Amino acid sequence: MDDLQALVDDIHREIAAHTERGKVADYIPQLAAVDPAHFGIAVATVDGREFVAGNADTPFSIQSVSKVFTLTLALGTVGDRLWNRVGREPSGTPFNSIVQLELEHGKPRNPFINAGAIAVADVLLAGHRPKEAIGEIVQFVRFLAGDETIVIDDRVARSETETGFRNFALAQFMRSFGKLDHPAEHVLGVYFHHCALAMTCRQLAHSGLFLAAGGRNPATGRTVVSRDRARRINALMLTCGHYDGSGDFAYRVGLPGKSGVGGGILAIAPGRASVAVWSPGLNRNGNSLLGSLALEMLAQRTGWSIFGA
Amino acid sequence: MDDLQALVDDIHREIAAHTERGKVADYIPQLAAVDPAHFGIAVATVDGREFVAGNADTPFSIQSVSKVFTLTLALGTVGDRLWNRVGREPSGTPFNSIVQLELEHGKPRNPFINAGAIAVADVLLAGHRPKEAIGEIVQFVRFLAGDETIVIDDRVARSETETGFRNFALAQFMRSFGKLDHPAEHVLGVYFHHCALAMTCRQLAHSGLFLAAGGRNPATGRTVVSRDRARRINALMLTCGHYDGSGDFAYRVGLPGKSGVGGGILAIAPGRASVAVWSPGLNRNGNSLLGSLALEMLAQRTGWSIFGA
Amino acid sequence: MDDLQALVDDIHREIAAHTERGKVADYIPQLAAVDPAHFGIAVATVDGREFVAGNADTPFSIQSVSKVFTLTLALGTVGDRLWNRVGREPSGTPFNSIVQLELEHGKPRNPFINAGAIAVADVLLAGHRPKEAIGEIVQFVRFLAGDETIVIDDRVARSETETGFRNFALAQFMRSFGKLDHPAEHVLGVYFHHCALAMTCRQLAHSGLFLAAGGRNPATGRTVVSRDRARRINALMLTCGHYDGSGDFAYRVGLPGKSGVGGGILAIAPGRASVAVWSPGLNRNGNSLLGSLALEMLAQRTGWSIFGA
Amino acid sequence: MDDLQALVDDIHREIAAHTERGKVADYIPQLAAVDPAHFGIAVATVDGREFVAGNADTPFSIQSVSKVFTLTLALGTVGDRLWNRVGREPSGTPFNSIVQLELEHGKPRNPFINAGAIAVADVLLAGHRPKEAIGEIVQFVRFLAGDETIVIDDRVARSETETGFRNFALAQFMRSFGKLDHPAEHVLGVYFHHCALAMTCRQLAHSGLFLAAGGRNPATGRTVVSRDRARRINALMLTCGHYDGSGDFAYRVGLPGKSGVGGGILAIAPGRASVAVWSPGLNRNGNSLLGSLALEMLAQRTGWSIFGA
Repeated sequence: MDDLQALVDDIHREIAAHTERGKVADYIPQLAAVDPAHFGIAVATVDGREFVAGNADTPFSIQSVSKVFTLTLALGTVGDRLWNRVGREPSGTPFNSIVQLELEHGKPRNPFINAGAIAVADVLLAGHRPKEAIGEIVQFVRFLAGDETIVIDDRVARSETETGFRNFALAQFMRSFGKLDHPAEHVLGVYFHHCALAMTCRQLAHSGLFLAAGGRNPATGRTVVSRDRARRINALMLTCGHYDGSGDFAYRVGLPGKSGVGGGILAIAPGRASVAVWSPGLNRNGNSLLGSLALEMLAQRTGWSIFGA
Repeated sequence: MDDLQALVDDIHREIAAHTERGKVADYIPQLAAVDPAHFGIAVATVDGREFVAGNADTPFSIQSVSKVFTLTLALGTVGDRLWNRVGREPSGTPFNSIVQLELEHGKPRNPFINAGAIAVADVLLAGHRPKEAIGEIVQFVRFLAGDETIVIDDRVARSETETGFRNFALAQFMRSFGKLDHPAEHVLGVYFHHCALAMTCRQLAHSGLFLAAGGRNPATGRTVVSRDRARRINALMLTCGHYDGSGDFAYRVGLPGKSGVGGGILAIAPGRASVAVWSPGLNRNGNSLLGSLALEMLAQRTGWSIFGA
Repeated sequence: MDDLQALVDDIHREIAAHTERGKVADYIPQLAAVDPAHFGIAVATVDGREFVAGNADTPFSIQSVSKVFTLTLALGTVGDRLWNRVGREPSGTPFNSIVQLELEHGKPRNPFINAGAIAVADVLLAGHRPKEAIGEIVQFVRFLAGDETIVIDDRVARSETETGFRNFALAQFMRSFGKLDHPAEHVLGVYFHHCALAMTCRQLAHSGLFLAAGGRNPATGRTVVSRDRARRINALMLTCGHYDGSGDFAYRVGLPGKSGVGGGILAIAPGRASVAVWSPGLNRNGNSLLGSLALEMLAQRTGWSIFGA
Repeated sequence: MDDLQALVDDIHREIAAHTERGKVADYIPQLAAVDPAHFGIAVATVDGREFVAGNADTPFSIQSVSKVFTLTLALGTVGDRLWNRVGREPSGTPFNSIVQLELEHGKPRNPFINAGAIAVADVLLAGHRPKEAIGEIVQFVRFLAGDETIVIDDRVARSETETGFRNFALAQFMRSFGKLDHPAEHVLGVYFHHCALAMTCRQLAHSGLFLAAGGRNPATGRTVVSRDRARRINALMLTCGHYDGSGDFAYRVGLPGKSGVGGGILAIAPGRASVAVWSPGLNRNGNSLLGSLALEMLAQRTGWSIFGA
């Protein structure tokens, strides 16, 4: 235990010394305004301990990290039928590419690229109004994290609604192939809101704990998904969680992970811990530059890589 | 121990009952002539035991499984400079696609698609004549497997030389971008020969043991690569080892693996075992249909998935 | 004169005998309901004569033929600056492809594919509300045809607004690249309305007469564009007017032309005549099957091909 | 007559004043060594006159201009069956792209891009050894030009054989789709040799005269192709003759034309004249920069544009 605390403190210190911090996402004002000097890390272990360093209690926009939660929720709702709507293969293209969508007739390659998460949001809308679907997602994330204070940052959601042209293009394009059941505006209403969830590293680490612990959150004692499904979600995070940098993340870090353009990354060490890091500057694939590095250090020093101790 | 033997026997029995066996690769006569009813499995554990069932001692053409060995050899030769020549990302396209190669100016996305393995062969040619480079590869695989009887099936190599137009196209294309140092004929001479290695499941399982055991073959006691490098090769196998079916293999099986169109698959359970399966019929992504299924059964029943027990 | 009348009568008779008539566009109800047996042809010569046969006075939805008129209007408004917004090259892809748009960062290849015409509509919106821009286009087409009775079919425009997801995707996509100045809804409002212009073959032939006569409508005596610009619009129609069937149309017919999914085609024989044909059934490139054939007969028998008498 | 001579002299003078001359093709030494200051123009009219200026009698490498002649020869041999082997649509991509070839399963889009001309060379090989096929092509071009002195520059052909990796890639790729009947080496032997034809502007203008005169060379009195076929070859030159700059050439010049990376362009004014220009510097699409400009001047001042006087 002391070791892990010393380790996250070390990582915090080493990261703080880095001057090259990547580029903060600037396509919406709320994200662009974030101070690139922020860094937080939180480790929640399956045996109930918690180790944090840096700005681990500062909320940030989790953006695409939320796709892990909507995927989990949608699998709970429609089960394996979800795979009729979205594939399970890495995309080999940037996160918002529309080219592959045309070649594959509107079926997104995986649930973690934008188009795929939009398809998942469409599934979550079935039988609901957008507001209700958004409410359900928030409730689910609070349940996962065991924290009722988690909320959506409405300014971020609104800002994306006004400027998310590319996502509108993706949604309209999928609709033109008959791959969305609801109007693009409704589906994106859900999508932009779950991306605008504001969470701290501590909250995020807790919300991923069920994936580290065979589907059951050891802190709350509640089963979220089956052991098999937890494994499979981890597999998807490993192969598809970092867009066109997924191979590199697996190579360097060796843990299932999901990043967001807000600079957060959730990583899972199966059987050990759930880890959240946050550093707003991004690398050229749109993943947190120093967040990735912090996880590489952690995996290196703990030997938690899933590819061999 | 008895349990594992019983398990591979069970898997053998269940696979034998399948009538849908996929489609044997037919693009070269030597592969097309193989009986689709063959099935072999061999498990070599890191503690020195061995469990086999079915045609585990029948040699087959390992084809692209050999790319794991040439990658390992090339990393040994040039180290991380290899990544100037080839990327580490899943391709999102079929194994022999040329489209992505044009978009990325002749640099293959990973060492396991054909173009990437051709780039690796070019690296192995440096300072050698093709014959010498081929000899080195054979020696290396014998060393890995601890078996001096392993040979190349020359008829297969010759046949591919005569009909492998697509691979010639890939090589000439890369050469047009200045991404190959040697003539396409020489590079493909090396490539076609290492793909034509004939091995049994038992031999193949042994040759992968170093990847399951932190870089050192416990049977021979010799270190092949560092612990870190073993992990990283496993990561590449997980994200890129099954072409455009890599995501699905990770999802269903949860082990690093590399397939070949001869119907073989090498899979690694880090810290546990190296597994080779062989069933000649392929699925639509060019991976062994029943081989994948056998590995799925094995991972399911042993709990060896790297994504959580 | 008698010869041309006999010729259009012959063509009408021969076309009527065809049983394979192509496939009526079915993506909006108003187009799908049109009787595929309709056929009309109208020839307006530069010396003021007019020859018609078949349903030459039945209004139909001119759809993409209208892009010739909006292009002409936009060139009149912003001149060659238009070419900063849209290219002049054939696309080599279907009319509604989004792939090329991604590769070329949101700049459409020519003003006759959907994306290009959307860019032109954006130009026509400058300083106007959508209703005004639509009004200007209608006025301009009436002026070209010398016919104040031409109107927009509002049901068609409304129907496209409700179901034109692909066009919304194109517009949002271009907007994401900063290539549209106005909201997608406004731009498409203009676009869908000018595509919904209802015209007869006789009206359409007259509206194109200025392109056959060096930029001046000989019937009204009014100059529309310079001689040079008329030539250039004809060149664009020749290279880009039939989507991915432009090469074939040039090869078989040899006249500048622009087709619409309503089954209409406007063709120009420079120095001779403007010709409009209408047959609702389309070929696989989305161009009128029998309309193309009728123009091929006409060009063959008159020797009007621009590629040599 | 005096007017035309004065005109070509004027053009020569104006072109000579240009300092921006484009970039000489440098991928083979023989082309790279050519002086960019060269400029030649030759106009051969259908009524038997000839007007030249500049270096009109200096031989240059006609490169892709030769594709007009091999297309004509292949159509003479196999007629419309040629269109089973190659399409008639503009490509929308650079001259040597392999992407479209993959999407269209190895069938080139038109006979003027490299892949298409390679398919034509394959057709011309039927029943011949490469040497014979090359001999036939030379004989045919001599017949067209009425000049027995025309020869191939063997150094250019040899140089391309050694360095034309991209063309080898195209040929091997087509062969992998079963779209070439002969070995890539043989087909490219023919292709590289006809591209290496050395001709003067005067010779080139004469060799295209049959296309300006309805299929019959008025100088020799011999019919080369039917009137219809001449028209259709002109149509192909207009839509596909300048690679991804074909639309722009049609827009600015308004004449069917075919360019080569040696800096030559053959342009046809149907019913009037055949024109050859030569200036070695190329624009970004690989077409002669000043050659295009010279033809634009010529078309502008003569009113020969096929899109309206």
